[in-house]
Amino acid sequence: MKNKIILMGTDTVAGVAPQIMKAIIRASNAKMLPYGNDSYTKNLKKVIRKVFEKNDLEIIPMMSGTASNALAISSFLKSYEMILCHDEAHINRDEGGAPEFFSCGGKLINIINNSGKLTAHDIENKINKINFKNKEKSKISGVSITQLAENGTIYSTDEILQISKLCKKNNIYLHMDGARFANALAFQNKLSPAEASWKIGVDCLSLGATKNGALAAEVIIFFNSKLAAEAMHRIKKTGHVIPKTRFISAQLYAWFKNNLWLELAQKANQKAKYFSDKISKMNDFELMYPTHGNEIFLKVKKKIYEEILKLNIVPNLWSKVDNNEFEIRFVVSFDTKMAELNKILSRLKKLNSECKSVV
Amino acid sequence: MKNKIILMGTDTVAGVAPQIMKAIIRASNAKMLPYGNDSYTKNLKKVIRKVFEKNDLEIIPMMSGTASNALAISSFLKSYEMILCHDEAHINRDEGGAPEFFSCGGKLINIINNSGKLTAHDIENKINKINFKNKEKSKISGVSITQLAENGTIYSTDEILQISKLCKKNNIYLHMDGARFANALAFQNKLSPAEASWKIGVDCLSLGATKNGALAAEVIIFFNSKLAAEAMHRIKKTGHVIPKTRFISAQLYAWFKNNLWLELAQKANQKAKYFSDKISKMNDFELMYPTHGNEIFLKVKKKIYEEILKLNIVPNLWSKVDNNEFEIRFVVSFDTKMAELNKILSRLKKLNSECKSVV
Amino acid sequence: MKNKIILMGTDTVAGVAPQIMKAIIRASNAKMLPYGNDSYTKNLKKVIRKVFEKNDLEIIPMMSGTASNALAISSFLKSYEMILCHDEAHINRDEGGAPEFFSCGGKLINIINNSGKLTAHDIENKINKINFKNKEKSKISGVSITQLAENGTIYSTDEILQISKLCKKNNIYLHMDGARFANALAFQNKLSPAEASWKIGVDCLSLGATKNGALAAEVIIFFNSKLAAEAMHRIKKTGHVIPKTRFISAQLYAWFKNNLWLELAQKANQKAKYFSDKISKMNDFELMYPTHGNEIFLKVKKKIYEEILKLNIVPNLWSKVDNNEFEIRFVVSFDTKMAELNKILSRLKKLNSECKSVV
Amino acid sequence: MKNKIILMGTDTVAGVAPQIMKAIIRASNAKMLPYGNDSYTKNLKKVIRKVFEKNDLEIIPMMSGTASNALAISSFLKSYEMILCHDEAHINRDEGGAPEFFSCGGKLINIINNSGKLTAHDIENKINKINFKNKEKSKISGVSITQLAENGTIYSTDEILQISKLCKKNNIYLHMDGARFANALAFQNKLSPAEASWKIGVDCLSLGATKNGALAAEVIIFFNSKLAAEAMHRIKKTGHVIPKTRFISAQLYAWFKNNLWLELAQKANQKAKYFSDKISKMNDFELMYPTHGNEIFLKVKKKIYEEILKLNIVPNLWSKVDNNEFEIRFVVSFDTKMAELNKILSRLKKLNSECKSVV
Repeated sequence: MKNKIILMGTDTVAGVAPQIMKAIIRASNAKMLPYGNDSYTKNLKKVIRKVFEKNDLEIIPMMSGTASNALAISSFLKSYEMILCHDEAHINRDEGGAPEFFSCGGKLINIINNSGKLTAHDIENKINKINFKNKEKSKISGVSITQLAENGTIYSTDEILQISKLCKKNNIYLHMDGARFANALAFQNKLSPAEASWKIGVDCLSLGATKNGALAAEVIIFFNSKLAAEAMHRIKKTGHVIPKTRFISAQLYAWFKNNLWLELAQKANQKAKYFSDKISKMNDFELMYPTHGNEIFLKVKKKIYEEILKLNIVPNLWSKVDNNEFEIRFVVSFDTKMAELNKILSRLKKLNSECKSVV
Repeated sequence: MKNKIILMGTDTVAGVAPQIMKAIIRASNAKMLPYGNDSYTKNLKKVIRKVFEKNDLEIIPMMSGTASNALAISSFLKSYEMILCHDEAHINRDEGGAPEFFSCGGKLINIINNSGKLTAHDIENKINKINFKNKEKSKISGVSITQLAENGTIYSTDEILQISKLCKKNNIYLHMDGARFANALAFQNKLSPAEASWKIGVDCLSLGATKNGALAAEVIIFFNSKLAAEAMHRIKKTGHVIPKTRFISAQLYAWFKNNLWLELAQKANQKAKYFSDKISKMNDFELMYPTHGNEIFLKVKKKIYEEILKLNIVPNLWSKVDNNEFEIRFVVSFDTKMAELNKILSRLKKLNSECKSVV
Repeated sequence: MKNKIILMGTDTVAGVAPQIMKAIIRASNAKMLPYGNDSYTKNLKKVIRKVFEKNDLEIIPMMSGTASNALAISSFLKSYEMILCHDEAHINRDEGGAPEFFSCGGKLINIINNSGKLTAHDIENKINKINFKNKEKSKISGVSITQLAENGTIYSTDEILQISKLCKKNNIYLHMDGARFANALAFQNKLSPAEASWKIGVDCLSLGATKNGALAAEVIIFFNSKLAAEAMHRIKKTGHVIPKTRFISAQLYAWFKNNLWLELAQKANQKAKYFSDKISKMNDFELMYPTHGNEIFLKVKKKIYEEILKLNIVPNLWSKVDNNEFEIRFVVSFDTKMAELNKILSRLKKLNSECKSVV
Repeated sequence: MKNKIILMGTDTVAGVAPQIMKAIIRASNAKMLPYGNDSYTKNLKKVIRKVFEKNDLEIIPMMSGTASNALAISSFLKSYEMILCHDEAHINRDEGGAPEFFSCGGKLINIINNSGKLTAHDIENKINKINFKNKEKSKISGVSITQLAENGTIYSTDEILQISKLCKKNNIYLHMDGARFANALAFQNKLSPAEASWKIGVDCLSLGATKNGALAAEVIIFFNSKLAAEAMHRIKKTGHVIPKTRFISAQLYAWFKNNLWLELAQKANQKAKYFSDKISKMNDFELMYPTHGNEIFLKVKKKIYEEILKLNIVPNLWSKVDNNEFEIRFVVSFDTKMAELNKILSRLKKLNSECKSVV
């Protein structure tokens, strides 16, 4: 008998948290003004101002993470400007050129390193190199970082602070792709949302709930509220105004309520840590980075990867080290069951002992 | 005691049909591949091929009507080309320039007339005028019409056929903004979806469910499947890929099932006709166009409009005839209650008799 | 023996004024810094400030009139905004959508009338109509007019003043496409360049020399110098920085020197008036508008138009009145010879008498 | 007494070759149809077909090298696609994002190496890496190389052939930025233009004359003529149609006539070699790459660079090795005088001996 397929490649295979589903159902019974002129959206704004301890911020509820990043970035990236990001950043590799499109051809300048994260040092070098020939007027308008970073680890408060200081010094903006911001926050459990964002210099945050319990809900938070003005116009032009906006706002409201967002992220992180600890002790799996959030990156032989697929376990094929070795990623969601993880581990353990002779 | 506000300006104030809500809830419990690689989306494709009696069509599930129009149009509107549409078309007046943005600056050439609808005659004149100076190579690549039209009436099968013949003759495409296609179909109750679209020459249809029972669900149907190729790429670049696509597909699947879409539209149309018949008999309300679907357009004195607002009834302020006279629109939804309509009518009747001396 | 072809459809068939040719030759012998960092460009700036009696203006030398218009307009037309122009404006009909492209999808809202010119009244109506539904925030950012207007007549100082007052009132910009600004100035011979532009509220002027003696030379003059900032960046991105900029500046410098620009325009205007007076007395030619500059618009029977072509005289086929009647345009250049005009007139006269029986 | 400033940083400081100037003067006396419908442009097409030994090619005369590159590239780079180029390529570093703009947000993927040139090996690795996660449909549509390369050396026929074979294999296009193609050809003196371009797989060539004797003249040659179709439309939209196109064509015609282009390039190359040989023997100047064309790249101490400027010799400050060491570039033009070079060499020699104690 064949094993049931277990999808472990990304957290967007997950379902919807019951609390959020309830909020959607409730919203489906009322009649409300469209385009964000509803009470849910108004309340969401209040909640976010409270959670992030800041009154002069602006928000835009969105349904797509790619659009949330691209719209946020286009608020400070003019057509003739450039921003810096990691070569492996989602905005650079996985969004089909959306930031370039939203900004009418703005340029993403890539920084390449093996750490999966930008450093203030890398950024400074790049800025100096670019401005060297362009002394009068720099065309660099910002930096974008991802929290959790591309390799699943957190940027520490100190690392971000160094980057944001450099941004201020160069008079440019700092954007954070917070697709897994909640997981980063849950990992650093003494840190407030404010301390993890605007208090350390983040100008705007694309905060994602879709990977962490929502059906389709993202929100751009402009801590620097003047950045919001253009985005408010551009959202219509890019087709991202959802008439029944209240359904996004209802999801996000429920997500923030009673710290559900942190609770869900905590669950995913803890199970990921459990899984990471176990799998990294197996012979054929080399843990590549510490598991801070809900992603586990492993180096495996190609042969092993193929065996995993045969077991009906589907991780994400992240990249190719060489023809014989791959990097794969397992992602644990809020609703991943412990039983499921244990099932995977036991299948892999079996594979592990069988494979010894194979590879 | 103050009356409760009744929102009647648009059908996007409505809630979600219970059958669709159930489908969403069901989808929220499964784990599925993201980005449309789920079984809901596969099934939706099958259903649409069956409902529209055509195998070689392609579909893209969307969450925004504006994006659905803009993406469909950009599949045949190159940056240096133009399409023809009515001056009052939603794509021209109400979408913030989205078609221009998606097509990187393609041009919408407006046709102005008082009927709210394009005619083959208008289109032919405009094409001739533009091509007169540009004989070698026309830059016109398509025509876009809206069903229900901008004034709430239907384009008849014959009218569309005349337009599509002209398109074929000029080797250009015909797009239909079908935000209220279901209402048009319900009005012409012997007509099949196929007979209302590709059989009379429509190349692609932006079909909307959001205004007719869904939470947020639209679908682009490319009857001319070669048009789909570019759109499939552009959807990522414009940020319109929703990771958990299954939630759009689930809505649409439920919408088509057991002809729910037509049933909901039928309900809205019937109640709109009832309302239209009653209100048009009152002195202060001049019905501007026959009520084919769920929209009622009325000419009223400014004073009357202001009185309506005071009664906590909110129609859409459509346009200004002059400083003393406005055009307003009432829209009836699938879930508008008869009691509500009667309440409005009785308030207006009262107003009507009171106002006689006022105006 | 066949007559020699006489090209009379546009002033871009003309050659280069000797004074300008000399300036180019002179510039070809020096070595200078590229990209506008040369002494010619610096001097040009001084001359323009003197000619237009204004110190705080910025200039950009260009080689293409279309680009000069599009770049000027994109300095105040954001992607999500719109500007108003005449339906027959060159920017709307003849520039392949360049303003839309430069502004990443900004919208040109057309005003249609039979006069070939915008009026303050038309503009006010359009603004009111658009803003009626969009009270909080108008997306209209400017108006563009053409001097000489589309029909070859001038906008009077008073007409422009009414329009610019309306612009100020609505807090939007006024652009002038001055492809034939010199001809307009020459017609109003007591008027200074300043009085014809910024003193009556023009914010930026796309001033063309190519149609009036230059090889390829246009200049954008930003009277509102803050508009220049973005344009200076955008010029590179749109590929309009010419490395050897000094060759454009040299042309323009020579064009302004000793009032050559007005002298050349005067010559063209006078010869055009002579031609217009004569031809309008012939039976088959109906003068459509007064001849203020160097363009003569005539209504002729199709048959006559075809006969003209057979005589090897080539006017511009402007538009179609109906299947039997066309509008044609003759354009007189600074270097059109009187002998040539008389030759045309005598050929037409002959045609005129012959044709009587034909048509 | 102060030395006269000698500009040596780029070949765009140069003047115009007398043969080309004569052609411009001749063209200035005739009346011709605008927009490329003139006899010069027709003849140019014939000449290019002859020089490149290919009948089915298309050409577009341009005035800007940046636009010539961007327009050529946009003919095969769709908005949602990407092309590969060297990190230091002119299209990537020095054109303000023009290719991104012309292609509405197409992406330039950079390959970084120290050789200043792409290799088939680098390209293959990058393609594999990108396609690894995107198996079904590659979004890579082309490769762009620069001849002379970014470091002033040539791509050999064999190197290009390897790259073009890889392009064919992957079904993507090969573009060549030929700003100094003539210099490359002059260096390989047995090679025909055809053997240096389409015969070794180049699909389109942006060929520049501005750096080699012209006033402002570039030409895009589409060896793959189907690529020309879109570009012909896009040229108007981007504002790059020059009304009096004959003046570009006249320059290019004279440039090709009697092999003037190769003769001018030969002169520049020879003088550059002379200069390179001499300067590289001086102590403070380290030649970085062999001098194949007209560019000499040198590594110098910062102090030396500053001394050079004080001598009123202006090379291009190319890049920064570290805080004490710079890379500078000298460029020799067709009209650089031997006396001038010797003057520079003698000033530098003097500096060289004086500086020994300084640094």
